[in-house]
Order: sequence, then structure tokens, then C-alpha cells
Amino acid sequence: MTTFLGTGAMGSALAGATLSNRRNVRVWNRNPDRTAPLADRGAQVLPKIEPPTDGPLVACLFDHLSVHESLDPIADDLRGHVLINLTTTTPGQARELAAWAARHGIAYLDGAIMAVPEMIGGPGAVVLYSGRAEVFEQHRDLLQLWGEARYFGADAGLASLYDLAMLSGMYQMFAGFLHGAAMVADAQVPAVEFAQLQAPFLATMTQGLADYAQTVDARDYTAPGQQSLRFTETALAALEQASGEAGVGTQTLHPVRRLVRNQIESGHGEHGTARIYEEFRSRR
Amino acid sequence: MTTFLGTGAMGSALAGATLSNRRNVRVWNRNPDRTAPLADRGAQVLPKIEPPTDGPLVACLFDHLSVHESLDPIADDLRGHVLINLTTTTPGQARELAAWAARHGIAYLDGAIMAVPEMIGGPGAVVLYSGRAEVFEQHRDLLQLWGEARYFGADAGLASLYDLAMLSGMYQMFAGFLHGAAMVADAQVPAVEFAQLQAPFLATMTQGLADYAQTVDARDYTAPGQQSLRFTETALAALEQASGEAGVGTQTLHPVRRLVRNQIESGHGEHGTARIYEEFRSRR
Repeated sequence: MTTFLGTGAMGSALAGATLSNRRNVRVWNRNPDRTAPLADRGAQVLPKIEPPTDGPLVACLFDHLSVHESLDPIADDLRGHVLINLTTTTPGQARELAAWAARHGIAYLDGAIMAVPEMIGGPGAVVLYSGRAEVFEQHRDLLQLWGEARYFGADAGLASLYDLAMLSGMYQMFAGFLHGAAMVADAQVPAVEFAQLQAPFLATMTQGLADYAQTVDARDYTAPGQQSLRFTETALAALEQASGEAGVGTQTLHPVRRLVRNQIESGHGEHGTARIYEEFRSRR
Repeated sequence: MTTFLGTGAMGSALAGATLSNRRNVRVWNRNPDRTAPLADRGAQVLPKIEPPTDGPLVACLFDHLSVHESLDPIADDLRGHVLINLTTTTPGQARELAAWAARHGIAYLDGAIMAVPEMIGGPGAVVLYSGRAEVFEQHRDLLQLWGEARYFGADAGLASLYDLAMLSGMYQMFAGFLHGAAMVADAQVPAVEFAQLQAPFLATMTQGLADYAQTVDARDYTAPGQQSLRFTETALAALEQASGEAGVGTQTLHPVRRLVRNQIESGHGEHGTARIYEEFRSRR
């Protein structure tokens, strides 16, 4: 029996994938209406949060605060139980929950989902875990119903750190795509047509990230054959000008150009473009 | 015989791929030292720019201004010739060059290269073209030596518009990746290790662009099952907080969050995240 707290889009996808594998499922949600589709599929609906009779408690709630609001009142009853927390949290929040769980004798595993709800249980979904290794090992069969399960280490913050770091690329890619779609709309090109070119192009471009990573690890941006900051500045200038011609805002693009220009102004114009990494680290 | 103007990294890659297919090549570069590697491979080096004896003139210069500086002095001698311009330009600049070419009786095709120099002539390289259709048809064999050649229409600005719109996603993805790499560096994770997860994750996420595009074309962000702006705001808040914990700057991420918040403040928190498209279009 697995007990799911939270049946929003993601919680429902997790519980649904578990039901699809003919496992017993109990669900709770603050708004009970949202549990109806799972109930129709055989889930037992809990009117209030209660400790599991057996099996792990899986939390997929709105945020870190919701986890405390839901579990603090029954913390003492959870002693000896397993809590797998898939709520989006920061690394610091995951570490705080791990310490809270340790104080209450709860075995805590933190998970971070690298997928949208529709991908859960299908190919391509990956879930990262960190925290108590024995929880990961004992429940690996369950975890693998949702997606490829990867364990990163005992520091409960690691899964979240990796996950959030991954999302940075995703959200900025999405913003860049929507910016591009707005540009071509000026020439009456539908976004669907643009996406047919953009998606495979970006997928190909992800192959270049390994080279960027090597450069960044060495913190040496002088190797020949890299696209220079000066060249990138020319391309970004053209991109901004074209956006202006098309009446499209550059609210997210311009800050990228500013990083490039900062590095050029510091005298690094002939260095590789990966050098903008130093702009992110300069706040340390 | 094909004449190449400009032998920077990209111009050299184009001329090199042409030589590799045992075609006759002439090259010119402002700094003649840069033509030496191509001369060693059999290219004829021109000491100064001159009209082609036969075959097209292929320009791959620093920018739009360089094209004028190089070709204005011999414009009258180019009447009846073909100019294929692969220099990075804005759509407006490409249209200006097309008009200039038309005034001088030059058949103009504008090209935009969606690849880095190392990819030219290999799988994955795509070059977009717009302008005179008959130039595209007559020289298709040549164009296909460099990459998959796609023609978009008679408006010479279209290839550049598409290309720049594509690059927006690429540069913002790169910035997001480097931001993420800076975050995991705080936990002593090498960027190379991070890239091994990030690259396939982002490649998978490009599959979601088609859905975003449909939503944007309909300009209806209310369909169920989308990730809401409110959910995205929670994720971006966690991402910013985690960045702060790791001492990493959010210069490029924060503006994405600002778009999300603007749309939430306008009362659209339960709408799909693709709605930030409206923020880019609001400048029109």
C-alpha cells in the first residue's frame, strides 16, 4: 500500500502510474474533488491525513510549507515510517526536512522529478533521489514505476540541487523558443511550423553542452575553435535588432547579451562564449 | 568555379566542404594569412575581390557592413552574376541587400546557417535560404555540400528571420545550462558530469515545444493539463532561492520569472505557462 499526499497534476500522475501497475493506493488531497478520477480507478480516498498502515508515504504537495502544514500535526505518529518527498523544494528546504524527519525517527528520501506530469511512467521521465540510501534500495520497484530512478547521495539536498539546476536550462530554453515564435509571427509563420524546425535544432545543439562543460571545468576559455564572445555579441546584436524590427520584446534575451558584453569589456572578446559562466560565479 | 569572400571559421568551413567534393574554389579574405590552409588544399587565392569568371559568388563576411564595403566598389561588374550571402544579417539587412542587388542586376539569395563551423558538410547542419528561387534551384547541388538546404520564399529576409528566431532558443538554453553548471559547482559536481544529465534532459524537453506552439497559435492558454503560471512561479522561486544559497547570479533567470509574474499579476495564474508569449508580443 502506498499513500499519496497531494493529487495535483503531478501527484495524480504518480498515483495513476502506481495504480496502472496494479498496486494498492491511498490518496489524500486538501480539495477532495481532485481525488475523484483516482478513486474511479480504484484508489482509496482518505478524508484526512493519517499515518500509513504499511508502505511509504509519498508527498507531492504545493511547496515546502505545505509539507510542514500537512505533516507537522502527525509527525509523532510517523516514527518508523518512510517519507518520500517529491514536492519541489530548494536544496536548503530538503535538508531542513531531512533534519526534521531525523528528529522524528522518519526515514526520509527526497526526490526531484525531471518530467512533466504527462511523461510520468513513460520513457524519458527521470526522477532524482537523495537522502536515506536504504529507502531508495527498499522501494526501488515502486520508484521505477514513475520513471528512471537515480540516487545521488546521502545529502538530502543533492537531488533538488541537480533538479533545479536542470530546470534553469529548460525554462530559459522555453522562454527563448517563445521569443523566437513571436519573431516569426511577424512574417505570418505559425508557431507550430517554427517548432518543427526549432525542436530538432535545439536537440542537436544540446550535443555542444559537453564541450562547454569541459571548458568550464578547466576554467580556460582560450582553446582555439570556440565561438568567441565577440562573434556571439555580433549574433546577439543582430537578434536584438531583428526583434526590434518585428516588434518583439527582448526582456529575456538582452540579459544574456549583457553577460557577453561584460566579459568583452573585461578584455575577453576573443575567448570562448562559455566564459559567461564566470558572470554567474562572480556573485559568490 | 565558386568564389568565396571571407575565410573566417565559417567561410573556411564552407570553402573546405566544397573543396572536399572536388570542386574548383577561389577564395578571398581581407587578411590573406587566413586563406593559407585552403590554398594548401587547392583553392586559388584572390589578392583582391573581383567578379567571378563563372559560378556564384558566396559571401560569408563579418557583418552586413562588411558585405557593402566589399561589394559596393565592384557592384556594376556583378551585373548578371549570382550572389549567395551567408553573412549573418538581420531580416531588414537581408531585404536591403536584396534591393541593392536588384538595382545592380545581381541575382540574390540570402542564406542563414544553423550550425557551428565544425558541423558544415556533416549530418545535422541545416542552411536556410530565401530570395531568388531560381538561384536556389540552379545551385542546389552546391548548397547541399554544406548542409541540408531549405528554401523559405522570395522575401529575402525570411531565412534570417527564421535563423535568428532559432538562435534565441539556443543562446538562452546555453545561458541556462551555464547557470545550472554554476549551481552544482557549489556541491563540487563537475560541469561535465552535469552536462551528461542536462543534455539528454533538454533534448527530451524539446518534444514539449510542439504543444506550446499549438497553444500559442490558438492564443488560448486555458486548456486543462498545462503547467500553470502559478506552478511555474513556484518552481522559479525555488530555483532563484537555490541559486542564492549556492552564491550563483540569476541575471538571465530572473527576467524569465518577471514575465511569469507579470502574467500572474494580470490575473492569469491558472493559465498555461506558454502565456509568457504574450509578454514578448506586448511590445508591438
